[in-house]
This record gives sequence, structure tokens and C-alpha cells, in this order.
Amino acid sequence: MYKLPDRSSGTSFDTIGILTSGGDAPGMNAAIRALVRAALNQKIKVYGIQRGFAGLIGGDMRRMSSASVSNIIQRGGTLLKSNRCEAFKTVEGRHQAAEALRKKGIQALICIGGDGTLTGAHLLARESGMTVIGLPCTIDNDIYGSDDSIGFDTAVNTAIDAIDRIRDTALSHERLFLVEVMGRKSGFIATQVGIACGAEMILIPEYPRALDSISHTLASNRKAGRGSSGIIVVAEGTEPGLTERLAGYLRQHGEEPRICILGHIQRGGSPTGHDRVLASCMGATAINYLQAGYTDVMVATLGRELIPAPLGDITARR
Amino acid sequence: MYKLPDRSSGTSFDTIGILTSGGDAPGMNAAIRALVRAALNQKIKVYGIQRGFAGLIGGDMRRMSSASVSNIIQRGGTLLKSNRCEAFKTVEGRHQAAEALRKKGIQALICIGGDGTLTGAHLLARESGMTVIGLPCTIDNDIYGSDDSIGFDTAVNTAIDAIDRIRDTALSHERLFLVEVMGRKSGFIATQVGIACGAEMILIPEYPRALDSISHTLASNRKAGRGSSGIIVVAEGTEPGLTERLAGYLRQHGEEPRICILGHIQRGGSPTGHDRVLASCMGATAINYLQAGYTDVMVATLGRELIPAPLGDITARR
Amino acid sequence: MYKLPDRSSGTSFDTIGILTSGGDAPGMNAAIRALVRAALNQKIKVYGIQRGFAGLIGGDMRRMSSASVSNIIQRGGTLLKSNRCEAFKTVEGRHQAAEALRKKGIQALICIGGDGTLTGAHLLARESGMTVIGLPCTIDNDIYGSDDSIGFDTAVNTAIDAIDRIRDTALSHERLFLVEVMGRKSGFIATQVGIACGAEMILIPEYPRALDSISHTLASNRKAGRGSSGIIVVAEGTEPGLTERLAGYLRQHGEEPRICILGHIQRGGSPTGHDRVLASCMGATAINYLQAGYTDVMVATLGRELIPAPLGDITARR
Amino acid sequence: MYKLPDRSSGTSFDTIGILTSGGDAPGMNAAIRALVRAALNQKIKVYGIQRGFAGLIGGDMRRMSSASVSNIIQRGGTLLKSNRCEAFKTVEGRHQAAEALRKKGIQALICIGGDGTLTGAHLLARESGMTVIGLPCTIDNDIYGSDDSIGFDTAVNTAIDAIDRIRDTALSHERLFLVEVMGRKSGFIATQVGIACGAEMILIPEYPRALDSISHTLASNRKAGRGSSGIIVVAEGTEPGLTERLAGYLRQHGEEPRICILGHIQRGGSPTGHDRVLASCMGATAINYLQAGYTDVMVATLGRELIPAPLGDITARR
Repeated sequence: MYKLPDRSSGTSFDTIGILTSGGDAPGMNAAIRALVRAALNQKIKVYGIQRGFAGLIGGDMRRMSSASVSNIIQRGGTLLKSNRCEAFKTVEGRHQAAEALRKKGIQALICIGGDGTLTGAHLLARESGMTVIGLPCTIDNDIYGSDDSIGFDTAVNTAIDAIDRIRDTALSHERLFLVEVMGRKSGFIATQVGIACGAEMILIPEYPRALDSISHTLASNRKAGRGSSGIIVVAEGTEPGLTERLAGYLRQHGEEPRICILGHIQRGGSPTGHDRVLASCMGATAINYLQAGYTDVMVATLGRELIPAPLGDITARR
Repeated sequence: MYKLPDRSSGTSFDTIGILTSGGDAPGMNAAIRALVRAALNQKIKVYGIQRGFAGLIGGDMRRMSSASVSNIIQRGGTLLKSNRCEAFKTVEGRHQAAEALRKKGIQALICIGGDGTLTGAHLLARESGMTVIGLPCTIDNDIYGSDDSIGFDTAVNTAIDAIDRIRDTALSHERLFLVEVMGRKSGFIATQVGIACGAEMILIPEYPRALDSISHTLASNRKAGRGSSGIIVVAEGTEPGLTERLAGYLRQHGEEPRICILGHIQRGGSPTGHDRVLASCMGATAINYLQAGYTDVMVATLGRELIPAPLGDITARR
Repeated sequence: MYKLPDRSSGTSFDTIGILTSGGDAPGMNAAIRALVRAALNQKIKVYGIQRGFAGLIGGDMRRMSSASVSNIIQRGGTLLKSNRCEAFKTVEGRHQAAEALRKKGIQALICIGGDGTLTGAHLLARESGMTVIGLPCTIDNDIYGSDDSIGFDTAVNTAIDAIDRIRDTALSHERLFLVEVMGRKSGFIATQVGIACGAEMILIPEYPRALDSISHTLASNRKAGRGSSGIIVVAEGTEPGLTERLAGYLRQHGEEPRICILGHIQRGGSPTGHDRVLASCMGATAINYLQAGYTDVMVATLGRELIPAPLGDITARR
Repeated sequence: MYKLPDRSSGTSFDTIGILTSGGDAPGMNAAIRALVRAALNQKIKVYGIQRGFAGLIGGDMRRMSSASVSNIIQRGGTLLKSNRCEAFKTVEGRHQAAEALRKKGIQALICIGGDGTLTGAHLLARESGMTVIGLPCTIDNDIYGSDDSIGFDTAVNTAIDAIDRIRDTALSHERLFLVEVMGRKSGFIATQVGIACGAEMILIPEYPRALDSISHTLASNRKAGRGSSGIIVVAEGTEPGLTERLAGYLRQHGEEPRICILGHIQRGGSPTGHDRVLASCMGATAINYLQAGYTDVMVATLGRELIPAPLGDITARR
């Protein structure tokens, strides 16, 4: 559980906006709920901005009440909807966004999302002087500066549940399965899932391996008496087309591997306890950070603590 | 729940064999357990044959006790392992199998599996005079003569659970998803899953449709005010490559569909209550059929009744 | 899957009302969705009545659109809310209800619920001449005239999932567990769950047994070499306080049984595929029955068929 | 993910023993698997001791191979079985246990369990000089010296899943539910679950509250416009009989609360990804600690690090 920071009485906000952007992740709704309730509790008005930065530029936002976030803590997806927005990647787009916020009287913006979202949030803060707080929310858990991100734990458990099913067939048919999990630039999901499923091998972008080396390891395992069934977990971003090429290579070397690409099922579903609590605490903390005068930071985890981490560092280390 | 038939005292068996063959399905273990326990209860010895018909030809079998099937009613896969066996498709192979059975003193064989398995079982019965009973067990539910097959209900629920997750993203991003479910020659899974998930469209082998007709229907739905998110459920066997081609076609017509192929996760997992009860009752009934003198039949469902259905009819209607 | 009846063009309805009443069951929302969409498709206006018969008497109802039932097919509970209503058990209360319907111009009422709800629906039809159709919806599956009711399959699977967990402890500690499942007057849930979980014993209202007879059977099982762990499934309505008394009795006879009362978790949760399809087909069929001129019937299942069954028969056989 | 310590080559072990004791928890099997595989990898022989300290005193143990822990990482319960053992609470009992270990040539013992187990492990180490390492494994997460224990995350998610179901009924019937979760001396489960489920109130042993104060808070919430449905999460150990007394009190004050006691379902089930990874890393680390010369410590977590924590401290702070 996380300790919430003390509130400084230094800064006071009247009206804030919230948006979710980029790929959706389980726990986004729990974060929205916590933000709305914590803000209302501090007599701060909240606008929910629709469809991420696109809706922000278009001024598509509506007032949120406590009831508007009832019964959503357990829901996957995001009730604010999300989007990838090209316009916001331009200075001009971000300028329009700042204008839209000012027109509505919104004094601070809270952005929930991954790498791209938080980078956009940082640029908005720097260019427009708008007060901006970020919440790291991506199943990939690849955000520099935070040990943990909302949605990661749920995605890991969803993938594990799927692989537990696949193993039933792998064992019954004594077969090798190559299972591709999400992770475009990072092997966090693959590593966690691979350990948790007792995978024979884990392939991740951080440690590229040649096909013959992989094949050689498998052959050694066979010789050492390990059964002919097995699971190899591959992070999708390890190498473009790796899973298919590996399957082809193994087929030429006497294996009969099957491929499963878990895909979008990893994004959805009811968030785990961990993600609900993380999202709830991060949401409440974001409002505290606002009132303590922070801007251009995200609520990050360091071990079991919540800390403010500069959004600029994410971009710098990208 | 199913009514079990009366046992005739006419036929008495001393020793039987059990095997699972073809693609595995949830509930195979529950069926094995019921067969073993019902047989032992009748003082019948049971051999578990390993790896389906391949193990049968190879004489790979071992005695099963009541304890050997403890705590498996809830497990996916098959503890007897399964396989697809080319040799058994030949008269010579089936002859060897019959010899292997006689050598062990096995007087009757119970085969758990789908279309191919039950066809093989029928040929063995016809050619060798061996007493053979089949249990319909396939997630596809495409066996002529039985309303229901073991594993179907579980596969449907697994696919539904996956699509419920995908819908979170579909709604959050207002996107169209093409979800491919299992079903090589039949649309049973797709239809059940599509209705249960409120799919916008269901594409199955039984009703082939042209791409432009599909696209036209989608466009009409959009005009009629249905949201831009949606799920189209496609049975894998509808047309080779249909999902990919449909996605390409829709992309040319202004949609941004995403593809998810659920794949092997549909085969595994703990069986549902329905499949456990069905497997348990079918297993107990198979032993009753044996003792009532039946052979070359499977235990089939007709509505809510269990009936003996000739294995030969499956082949005839294939 | 169920075949829907042909629509006669004989009767035409302009406006109908829908309500859910009594204990909630998974699939109620799926039924509401199907009813609303099927009615709107036939140009029939639909009022959703809040809180069951209480809301009906109080005139608490609102128009339902297609969008109002979006994304609810997978949700437990009932968005119309439910209630047990004492007033509706009186002639006077039902008279008020009929008045409220007429005032709103509602020509037919569709009632979703169990025994009590369908009995109330029948009395309303008989006394007021109102066109009434029922949908059997209760986790207990104890409605005379229908093989199946919406919610039963989900409740069974929820209880099985819970007992699968309990068995982990039962096996690890070699302990006996008495697990009480729902079923006030019937053993349907207990029987299905008990078979599916490989229970050592199943106790249901339909077959009352004396404590010493139960204890004797357990002792025999022990002697026959069955392990000291085990699950006894007890239907809550078997005898008031039976579970506690049995535990006490067994404790005096050398066992150390633990008690688990599954309780309300069996009512909730996302409906299974079976319940979603059943609810969807029953909902669509109810609208067809209306247009075919039926009244005072429920949509029942007979084997795999949907049939109209007289509501009066339920009361008669109660 | 956790960083494993370096192995010192200082101490070498030939044979070790492993046991699980006390209440079972999800992840025990994953810990056993990791211990066995890590030990075998270091050429250390492993004995699995049956039924905890009782089996240790009785000398009930058997050699474990790599295959003996295949396919158990995902299983609840413990394949070594567990027990509460009165004899081991005496000096004499622990003396017998040490003798049994020496007789088998076992040089070190690894104990997996909670408070009581680890206290026993400490006393054995102190009194007999036996090398002993502990693994904190309890759903209650109440072990002094470790932030986290194996099984806690799974129990929390199981309780959340149950309460998500209960909420369907709470909302549909606008009712108040008192849900009792596990936690004899601590509110860890209750707090995590309560936040994750959006509970109206959380009652834990660490913060006792008077009935009228609880009732007063509820009444204030009602006045402030919060709906009449709600969930109150109560840790079982808050006060003996609190849940029942609270329900009675609230009934006298106009509420109609329902009670659910989640009970043993919280102990079982397949462990979450978190618990599987934690158990796997703790198991591997325990073998490293052994070889690094540690004894009378447990593998504990401090934030995201694994550290050796003195077993004696647990007893001291009990």
C-alpha cells in the first residue's frame, strides 16, 4: 500500500481536466474515479476530456460528478475513451490544446497514459506553462522513472491465464508452443509471464539472440531429458517477425512448434487488485501534488513509495 | 442432468482400454475419470492407453486405479495424452491395434475424441469385431448424431471471456475488431460466441458471404447510427485467409479494423460445469452401454437425453 | 441454440413494459437487452420499469432506447433494479399496477424473474386481462414447466470455481469441507455442482437423510480406502441448520469438518455463454409470442426447444 | 522483479529438506518447485517432508526429482501437504525433528509458511544448531520483517472477484452488504480489498470502532446523497462476532444488511503472476542464502529487494 503525501495549502485550483490517451490499459477507469473523487473532495471542479488529446484540441469535454464515476473501478478500458492524436505531436496542436483549456477555465491537466502521452504532457507543460501532472498507465511498464505502471499487473495475469490454457494442450500433445506477448520495446511482460508460467525460454528485445543459438539451447534441453513439450515466451517487439522465423527454423530442425499471438486480450479485462489500488492511490496523490504546487511531473513508484518524477526525464531517456 | 440407462446383465467384461485421440478438449480428464471409476465399480479392469491410436498400436498402456484419476475432474488436457496417428488410418495399422488389444486381454475399447477419432473407432469395430464405444469430445461440436460434445461449452466460454476483454479496447478506441475463433468446418463456436458477445456480425462456413456484401452491411449499420466500435466474429474455417482479406478490404473502405486470432487458448483450461457433468454422465453411460451389449456406437445427446448413436453414421455423413 | 418461432401478424403492440423482480440472476441484463432490441426492431416502444412490481405500482418507468442497453449483455445484476414487493401480493396492489400500466399506455408487460415473480405475473394477467409474458430467471432453476432458467448455469459455474479453490486446501490439509450452496427448495445447484466437483456426498431437500446415515456413509468411505479429505455439497434449503448440525455430529465422531457457505457470490458475476444465449433467445422469443397473440405464458425450454408454457401451471404446482 | 544475491562458494550442502506448514497459501507449490530445481541445479539432493512438522518428527519424507515438481507452478495448495503440529511447539518435539533430519543426512531445512511456522523454524535453528531458512508464505501478509508474503496477492484478488459479484446484487437490490474477509490479527487483506472494491467502509483489527460510530458514519453517507447500496469490508479478526453484531445493530437502525463470509475460498486457487514470481525468486534465493552461509533467516522483501531477515525478530515482535 502507498503512503499519500501531505497536502500543502500553497496552491489552490478551481477547475481541472482529465484525459486518457494512447493504448488503453486496465485501471484507467480506477484512476479516473480516484482523480474525480479526490478533486471533488477538495472542492475542485473536474472536466472529463473525451478521446485524449484529439478531444482536448477539439474542446470535447464535460463536467464530471461523483456519480459519473460510480461502479467503474472494476471496469477495463476508459470511459473517457482514448486515441492516438497526430495533431498534438505538433507545436501548433499543443498550442490549440492550451487555448481550449484556458477557454474552459481549466487550470491544470492530468494526463493518464504511456510513454507518448506523458511526453506530450511534458511538452504541453513546457510550452504553454500549463500545470500538468501525469499518471503512468501502460501494460508495457516501459516508462522511465517509475518502477510500476497501471495496467501491467493485469496484462501479466491475463497472459498467464492464457498460457496456462495453452500448456494443457502442450502437455497433452507433447508439443512446443511459441507464445507472443505484448511489449513493443521492452521485455517486462514477457519476463514476468515467462517466469510465472515456467517457460522453457524467454525472448526479449533487451537480449537479442540468433536463431541457431535458440535452437541449440532447445536441443540441449531435449538431450538433458526435458520433455518434448514446452512454452517459449516471445515479446512482440523482440525482432519484427521473429516468432514466425523461429517457428520456420525449428520446423527445419525437427520440431513441430505451434504459434499463439495473444494480442489485444492483454489490454482489456477487469483490473487486478494491485492495479486498482495503484490507480486509486496514484489518482489521489496526483490531486495532492497539484495542491502542493507540483507541475510537469508524474506520480511514479520507487519501490513501494509514490514519488513525483519529472516528465522531462522520460523524453530525455527515450 | 442426464438419466443413465439401466444396465443389462447380458454382457460381462473383464478388461477394457481407454484412449483419447485428436485435438484435446476440456473435459477429457473428467470423462477418463468417470470411465475408470464406473468400470472399477463394476469390477472391470481398466488400461489407460497413452497417446491415442499411436500408443495403442505400440502397446503403450498401463493399469488404472481409482486413485490414478483423483483430482483430475477439473483439469484441462488429457492425462492419457493425445496424438494424431497416420498409421491408424490404414487397415494394417488398425489390424495391429486390434492385435495389441487382444495381447493385453482387452475386450473392449472406449475412444474419446472428435470426428477423426470416432471414425477410426468405427473402422476398428467393423474390421476387427472389437467392442468399441465412442465419446464425442471436441470443442468444435461438429459430430453428426450428437447435439452436444464434451469441450464445446468450455471453448465457447473461453472465447467469450477473451472477447469481453477485447471489447474494452474496442469501446475505448471506437474500433472494429475481427476476432477469429475455432471451427474448421463449422460455425458452432462462432455463432454461440457471437450472440453471447453481442457481435455486430458472425461469419461462418455454413453461410459464405462476399467481401463487398459484408462491407455493405457494416456501412449500413454505421448509417443507422450504430457506433464505430464493433466485434465481428469469424469462424477460422469460413474461408482460408478470410479474416486477413476482410481486414484489407475494410481498410480500403475507410475502416481501421484490428485482427485477433484467439487460437489455442480455446482448447485448454478447466472445464465448465456443463462439460464436467456431461463428461461424467457420458463416461458412466459408456460402461452401461458396454454391459448392455452395445458396440460401434457413441454416447450421444439428443436434447437432454443420452442415447446410443451408431458410429457408422458419422462417417456416412462426413 | 434455440429456434425462434414465426411471428404471426395477428396482434400488434404499440408499447410494452419490462421489469425484473425477486432475487437477481446473471443474464437478467442480457434478457432486457434482447427484449428492448427485438421490440424496437418491431417498432414497439419499450418502458423499463424500475425496482420490479414496487416501481410498477409507483409508476416509476422510463423509455428505453437501443443505446440504453448497449454493453450490458455481459454484466451481472439488473440495470432495471429488482425488489421483493409485498403490495403486489394483494389484489389491490395488482389492481394499482394494472392502472399504472394503462395510464402510460402500456399494452403488455414482460416479467423477468423466478417463481414468485411469475406467479405475480400470472395473477396480474388473470385479474386485469393485461397481456403478460414471463421469462424464467432464477439461479435455483426451480420453475415448474421449464427445463432451464436464466442464471442457473452461471451460478453453478461460480460455485464450482469456489469449490475448486476449497479443494486445494482440503487436499493440502486432508480435511473434510461442508460447502453450502444456494437452493432454497431444490437441489439443482447442489447436484450439478456436486457432480462437477467430484463431491463425496450431495445433500438436497428432495432426499432428506438422517445425520447418522450420512456419518455412516462417510465412515464406510474411509474404510474403503478413500482419503480423509473430501467435499460434501449441501443445498441451503435441505433442512434449516443442517450444515451446522452435521458438522457438530461429525466432530463428535472424530472428523474435523470445516464449513463454507458460498452465499451471495452465486448470484452475481458476468453470465456464462449459455445464460447469455438463453437470455437473448428467450428475450427475442417473448416479443414473437406477444405478436403471435400469446398471453399468460412464459418462454420455457423443453430439451433444446423454446415453448410457451402457461404461467398458471407454475402456481398450480408450487 | 527481484535481483538474486550472489552465491558465495563458502558453504556447501549435500542434502536439504523442504516442508510446508500451517495454513496453505497459493504459491506454496511454486516455491517448492523453485527450491527443488535451484537445489538440484547446484547438485544438492532434496527431500520433500510430508505434512509439515508432523511429518518431520515422524520421518515422513521422500527424494524429489526435477520431474516431481513439473506442472505445479500454477497449482494452489501444497503437494507436500501441510498441518498444524502441536508436538513441534515443545522442545522435545523439536529435538525429535532434529534427530530425524540428522538420521536422513539432511544438513539444512527450508520451511515455507506463516508466523507459527517461521517461529518454529527459528526455535529449531536455535536449539539444534540446524541450518534453517524460512520463506514467508501466508495469505494474511502479517509477518514482521517482510513487506510481502507469498499468497497475499492471490487471496486479495480472489476476495475482490467475489465482492465484484456481490456488488451486482448490492446495486440491483440497493442493499448494504457486510463482507468478512480473512485476517486474524491484521487488516492487510481487508484494506487492499476494500480500496480495490470501492468499499464504503473498511473495519480492521488495527482500528477498532464502536458500533454507534460505524452506524453514524453510514447515516452521514446516506444524508450526503450516497446511494443506499454499499459494501462494508470487515477483517475476520477485527472483533469476535463483530460482523453479526454490526448487522444486528444496523437492522435496529433501519438498514437491511446482508452478511457474506468469504471464508476458505481465499486460501486456494491458482496463484497470481505476482505470487508465482515472488515464490520462484524467493525459492531460488533461499538456496543462494544457504550457500552463502546464512541460517536462522527468512528470505524477505524490502520494497522490491529480497533481503535476509532474522527469524528471531518475528518471534520478538509477535
